[in-house]
Amino acid sequence: MPMNLQVLLDHRPTGKVSPANFRFVETPIPAPGPGEVLVRHTFLSLDPYMRGRLSDAKSYAKPQEVGAVMGGGAVGVVEASNNPRFKPGDAVVGMGGWQRYAVSDGRDLNVVDVSRVPIQAYLGPLGMPGVTAWYGLHKIIAPKAGETVLVSAATGAVGSVVGQLARAAGARAVGIAGGPEKCAYAVKELGYAVCVDHKSPTFADEVKAAVPDGVDGLFENVGGEPFQQALRRLNDFARVAICGLIASYEGAPTALPDMRIFLVRRIKIEGFIVSDHLSLWPQAIGELAGHAAAGRLKWRETIRDGIRSAPQGLVDLLHGDNFGKMLVRVD
Amino acid sequence: MPMNLQVLLDHRPTGKVSPANFRFVETPIPAPGPGEVLVRHTFLSLDPYMRGRLSDAKSYAKPQEVGAVMGGGAVGVVEASNNPRFKPGDAVVGMGGWQRYAVSDGRDLNVVDVSRVPIQAYLGPLGMPGVTAWYGLHKIIAPKAGETVLVSAATGAVGSVVGQLARAAGARAVGIAGGPEKCAYAVKELGYAVCVDHKSPTFADEVKAAVPDGVDGLFENVGGEPFQQALRRLNDFARVAICGLIASYEGAPTALPDMRIFLVRRIKIEGFIVSDHLSLWPQAIGELAGHAAAGRLKWRETIRDGIRSAPQGLVDLLHGDNFGKMLVRVD
Repeated sequence: MPMNLQVLLDHRPTGKVSPANFRFVETPIPAPGPGEVLVRHTFLSLDPYMRGRLSDAKSYAKPQEVGAVMGGGAVGVVEASNNPRFKPGDAVVGMGGWQRYAVSDGRDLNVVDVSRVPIQAYLGPLGMPGVTAWYGLHKIIAPKAGETVLVSAATGAVGSVVGQLARAAGARAVGIAGGPEKCAYAVKELGYAVCVDHKSPTFADEVKAAVPDGVDGLFENVGGEPFQQALRRLNDFARVAICGLIASYEGAPTALPDMRIFLVRRIKIEGFIVSDHLSLWPQAIGELAGHAAAGRLKWRETIRDGIRSAPQGLVDLLHGDNFGKMLVRVD
Repeated sequence: MPMNLQVLLDHRPTGKVSPANFRFVETPIPAPGPGEVLVRHTFLSLDPYMRGRLSDAKSYAKPQEVGAVMGGGAVGVVEASNNPRFKPGDAVVGMGGWQRYAVSDGRDLNVVDVSRVPIQAYLGPLGMPGVTAWYGLHKIIAPKAGETVLVSAATGAVGSVVGQLARAAGARAVGIAGGPEKCAYAVKELGYAVCVDHKSPTFADEVKAAVPDGVDGLFENVGGEPFQQALRRLNDFARVAICGLIASYEGAPTALPDMRIFLVRRIKIEGFIVSDHLSLWPQAIGELAGHAAAGRLKWRETIRDGIRSAPQGLVDLLHGDNFGKMLVRVD
C-alpha cells in the first residue's frame, strides 16, 4: 500500500539550518473530505524565504510550526476531488508543502496549463518567483528605457526573470552572480549586458566599470558586501527594491551605514513581499506567460531527486549552490 | 550714503561651523542692469540645509562658493526695477542671500501677497519649509485618516507644518521635540496628540507609549538616536520621508542597522529635496495659504536682529536653539 512521505520541522535551527532540523515520517495517504482535493505532488519548491519561517522571530509570515509538515509551494496532479473546481488529472499549483500527497480545501490551489511549459514552471518564472520579479521591477523600480537596472542573484529564480523583464522594458540589465559559470550564463542566455562575479577579488572595481552611467534601479536579493558596493553606484532618484537579503539570513545583518544617501541622492528603498499583492498575480502571470510564449523568458533549474533531498536542498540553496530555480522532484 | 552689507563665506568649516567661517564686507549698493531688479531685504531665512552647502562634499546642491555672498532665501521690497514683472514697492521672495540689497534677473523672484500674512511667512509656512512639509507628507507618506504620523523636530519650520497638515488629513500626529517648552507648544498650539521630549532619559519608553498603534508615517528631520527609536515603532507598510538628518550634519552618521526591516515590515524610505519639485510649489503654497486663511496653520518664529547676527543664528539653528522658523531681521 503506498504511503504518504512527509518532512516535518523537528526543531528550529540556532545559527545555520541543517538537515538535522528536519525528520521524515510515513503516514497513510489522507482521504479528501467534503469540498477537499487530494493532490499527488510532482515537484516541491525550495525558496530562500523558507529560512525566515524556520525562526520564530517576528517576521512577515507566521513561523513554520515545529512538528508540522514543512510548508512551501508544490505542483502536482489531482488524484481525487470533492471540489467542483478540480477533477482528477488536473495539473495544479498550491502550497502543499514537503510531502508526497497533500489535501487542500482548494482555496490556495490553482489549475495550470501545462500544454506549453513544464508543470514546475509554475513554481518558477510563472509562479511566485516570477511574480516577485515582476512586482519589484514594475511596481517599485519602474525602469525607463535606457536606464540601468542592477540585479543581485542575477541567475536565481527571481533575478533571472528581473533581468529579462528589465531588458524587455528597454533598460540595460547588469547582473551580480556567484562564479564565472553563472555570469557567463547571465550574459549569453539571459540578456544581461554585463554580469559581475561577487567572488572576484576586484569585485568593487568591476561593479563600477559595469555601470558607467550609474544605477537607476537596484533589485536586491542578497545584501551583504555586494549591496554596499551597489549603493555606491546609485544615481539620483534611484529606486531600490528589497526582495531578499539571503546573505544576512544566517550571517551578519546588512546595514545601511549612512542615511545621508537618501538626501544626497534622493533615493527610494522599498521592501516588499509578493504575497501582499495577490490581486496582481493574474496580471503578472499573464504577462510572464506572454513573454515565455514569445521566447523572451528563459530559465534554468537545479533539481534534486526525492523528498528526502529537500532539507539538504534548502541548505544548498541558502549557500548559493543552486543554478536557477531550486526544485525537488518527488519520487 | 547707504551701503550694502554682505556676509561672505570666508573659509569652509572643518567639523562644526562657527561665526569665524564668515566675514562681513560693505560694498556700494548695486544698480540693476537691463531686465534686473534691485531688492532691499527685510528678512533672511536660516535653514538646516545650509550646513551641507558649506562643505564641498558631493551633495544635491552645489557647494557655497568661498569668498561669495552666502546664499539663501530672503524676502524684501523692490527698490528699483528694469523688469516688467516687478515694480518698486512690490513685496518679493527670492534667493538673494545674506546681504541687505540683492540684484536679481527676476527668474527666482516672486511677488507675494502681504495683505493677510507678514512677509516673512513666505520664508516659512508659505515658503520652502511649508512646501517641504507638504511634499513629504502628501507625496511620500500620504496618510490615511486614523493613521499615526510621527514627526521629528516637530515644532521647527518644517515639522510644525507637517503636524498640522497630518491632522488636517485626519491622521493622528505625534511629535518629537527638544525640551518641555517645545513639547507643550506642539500639543497646545499645533494640534499634536502627544509630543515626546528627546532629551528625556526615558525617551524610548515615552515614544513607545505615545504610539500605541505604531507608526504608519515617519517624517524625519533629525536622525540620530530618536530616529532609531522611531524605526522600532514602524508598522507594516510604513512610509518614511527623509527630509533632514540635522543630528548628523556635524556629528556621527545616522545608520540603519538592519535592512531586514524592509522585509519584515515592507516599509518604504524615500529621501527628497523640495527644489526637485518646483512644478508642485504653486499647488502646495495655494493649499498652505488656504489652511492659513482658515486658521488651521499656526507658526512661530525666532528672529535675530541684524545681518551681522546671521552666522551665529545658523550655528544656533543647527544646535536646535530656535523655536519655529529661524529668521534674521535686516537692519
